[in-house]
Amino acid sequence: MGVLVVGTVTLDTVETPSTRVEDVLGGSGVYAAVAANFFKSAVQLVGVIGADFPHTYTDFLETEGIDLQGLKRINNGKSFRWGGRYAKDFNVRDTLFTELNVVADFQPILPEVYKETPYLFLANNPPVLQLSIIEQATDPKLIVCDTMDFWINEEREALEALLARVDVLVLNDSEAQLFTGDSNLMRAAQTILRYGPKRVIVKKGEHGAISVTESSFFSAPAYPLTEVTDPTGAGDSFAGGMLGYIASVKDTSEETIRSAMIYGAVVASFNIEDFSVNRQKRVKFSEISSRYSELQEAVRF
Amino acid sequence: MGVLVVGTVTLDTVETPSTRVEDVLGGSGVYAAVAANFFKSAVQLVGVIGADFPHTYTDFLETEGIDLQGLKRINNGKSFRWGGRYAKDFNVRDTLFTELNVVADFQPILPEVYKETPYLFLANNPPVLQLSIIEQATDPKLIVCDTMDFWINEEREALEALLARVDVLVLNDSEAQLFTGDSNLMRAAQTILRYGPKRVIVKKGEHGAISVTESSFFSAPAYPLTEVTDPTGAGDSFAGGMLGYIASVKDTSEETIRSAMIYGAVVASFNIEDFSVNRQKRVKFSEISSRYSELQEAVRF
Repeated sequence: MGVLVVGTVTLDTVETPSTRVEDVLGGSGVYAAVAANFFKSAVQLVGVIGADFPHTYTDFLETEGIDLQGLKRINNGKSFRWGGRYAKDFNVRDTLFTELNVVADFQPILPEVYKETPYLFLANNPPVLQLSIIEQATDPKLIVCDTMDFWINEEREALEALLARVDVLVLNDSEAQLFTGDSNLMRAAQTILRYGPKRVIVKKGEHGAISVTESSFFSAPAYPLTEVTDPTGAGDSFAGGMLGYIASVKDTSEETIRSAMIYGAVVASFNIEDFSVNRQKRVKFSEISSRYSELQEAVRF
Repeated sequence: MGVLVVGTVTLDTVETPSTRVEDVLGGSGVYAAVAANFFKSAVQLVGVIGADFPHTYTDFLETEGIDLQGLKRINNGKSFRWGGRYAKDFNVRDTLFTELNVVADFQPILPEVYKETPYLFLANNPPVLQLSIIEQATDPKLIVCDTMDFWINEEREALEALLARVDVLVLNDSEAQLFTGDSNLMRAAQTILRYGPKRVIVKKGEHGAISVTESSFFSAPAYPLTEVTDPTGAGDSFAGGMLGYIASVKDTSEETIRSAMIYGAVVASFNIEDFSVNRQKRVKFSEISSRYSELQEAVRF
């Protein structure tokens, strides 16, 4: 029982008020796969890289035990590169550049052994690409997808077709507001449910996340960090951690998804403490359990 | 065992995208007193009004059982008037006018019977005025105060002197950031603790509130409303409800304060559903208990 992650595998340049890193390992697929991998479920990563992608990065992912059969290297292409700059309080991010390169023409074909994987995380990608994965999956137990403002604005119809086919939509607060034109997040989430997903999870950054279904409401706190180094990948770490936990307990009940969201929030909190996946490389599972317990204590009344 | 509320008693004009109300009952003292009064503790209100203040408003407060011995009517003065306008999503409020009138020279003197009241809520006021109340109180068990950007900017020194004398500071997120110059709320709260309060409660509107002490962290959810009519007074309803509950159980332990914050959040959620205290007039205690239970369910994992 494993997790299939379909997302980007990129070389990121990130500027914060104090530091700049260049061509570090990044991408929604990487953040989600590394997060899911903490929970000892088999994690498969589907994505595309170019000839320039450092072998040290793929070696790291393989050493961690992430299955890279679905990661395609295009030998005459260049990797996706993204650059972003954070302002002082990390609430504002400017995109400095986005070079799609090999991602522009990517049409993922699932390796045979991936088709039966039960838990799918379709990270932000063109909705048609996300749909094509769903069509290749033979027995999905839970399909979770993410999206972004660009697809909401430019590919609305395809996105709506996608929503009719997924179990859970994960998106951030500004995206939920953009999709629905409604600034009330609770009402926005209820509106999105009508497009098909059984559950809408709205990420609110430092304010945590909410999960809304027809019959339930869950408010998940964020882990209260006092030091933020780089928020890049936090949302994908959240979703990946969530899927990793779900796959490890092989259950998609409300109870499990609530716990999974907290595990996701914890993994995201570690992600934010360093650039790229550097902090994740050093995290022990006991530290994850410890922050999970702290969050239990933080909401108890 | 009761609650002493010191705050403004005003005539408010509020404009929302759909409605405008004029000279309705408002003010931090009114919102807090009405909120505290749900919990069957004796509630005393200290404030000042002018000759123009409608008797129907004071009659309402008295009928509710709020002690108005400390509410002074200045017969040759005009009442505090405030006007505000909310934008479409209620996150932005423009102040249209502030006429201090009788409040400008108010030097509250506590009636003898108020001096031994154990639970004090000092709503937003000049810090020196808040301090003068503390000096008149003979046996306070818990002193909670609020403040605002104006005093942070203009009366910093007096505010710091006040903080050394209070148990709990309640303020909103932007005020915590302004006071400390720190955008990280957790760190900002920890910084404020060094000025003296044993507990800092940061209100985050629709994102709930956090409570920080030297040794504890509590994340309180907001009640997820789908309809907002008028947020005016929500923060004071939160603090007043909190104090009312604390006084009703006569305890200031961490456990009690957590429950109290949730009761505060519930009363604030009702406040937002109508202008002035109109919704509160119709709320039954069973509805408060019901939303309290819903919030328990909303954070359970």
